[in-house]
Amino acid sequence: MEENPEGKGALRANEEFYRAFESLDLGRMEALWARGEGVWCIHPGWGLLTGWDQVIDSWSRIFENTSLMQFRITDAQVQTSRDLAMVVCLENITSVVDGNVSEFKVLSTNAFMLREGSWLMVHHHGSPVYRA
Amino acid sequence: MEENPEGKGALRANEEFYRAFESLDLGRMEALWARGEGVWCIHPGWGLLTGWDQVIDSWSRIFENTSLMQFRITDAQVQTSRDLAMVVCLENITSVVDGNVSEFKVLSTNAFMLREGSWLMVHHHGSPVYRA
Repeated sequence: MEENPEGKGALRANEEFYRAFESLDLGRMEALWARGEGVWCIHPGWGLLTGWDQVIDSWSRIFENTSLMQFRITDAQVQTSRDLAMVVCLENITSVVDGNVSEFKVLSTNAFMLREGSWLMVHHHGSPVYRA
Repeated sequence: MEENPEGKGALRANEEFYRAFESLDLGRMEALWARGEGVWCIHPGWGLLTGWDQVIDSWSRIFENTSLMQFRITDAQVQTSRDLAMVVCLENITSVVDGNVSEFKVLSTNAFMLREGSWLMVHHHGSPVYRA
């Protein structure tokens, strides 16, 4: 559970998740998620999505309605155990969704599993921050 | 990352977390959290709390303002890796906070680490559900 070299790998995977989100490129987002039923995703305010199909479909819908997404990630912390890693971080976001510009903060828990040397995403849980 | 006997232990720890929450007994809540700096907590809408002191202080404040908290937990799923386990579940809640009765749903990611045979809580991330 301590920070270790695996923690650095998971933090790099976490960084790539936000670069993929900014790219609004569905293929790049697909490439970093683990395949199968054991993946979960909770977008801010949404219900629980489980399995590759539901998760990737949600990214497709988000990318369709978004013309700009910029993340400044702060407060990233990681915990790892062999082949499972968990990252929490604060997303400082500037976005244009349905033509509306907004700036807001989301706190996220992201989880990754190590498969054949790569940390693949298995869980994203983002939630709005109302109070500091 | 598959479900396994460790998964059952983590699910039992997850269940005890909600029984402790319902009890509004700070000692019972303290007993299930890991000690030290490597614990995190995100209450719905709050900022990130890190470390035992911040996390336990938040429970103390929540319990002071709450006279009833009842959970019906559904959709619980678990992923484990040796000594780290992650659970997602839907909290169907009836509460009385500051004298106001309300019913609402929260989606949570909870994480536990295995220490000396016990699954101890290291992370709680709860967020409101606005859409199914």
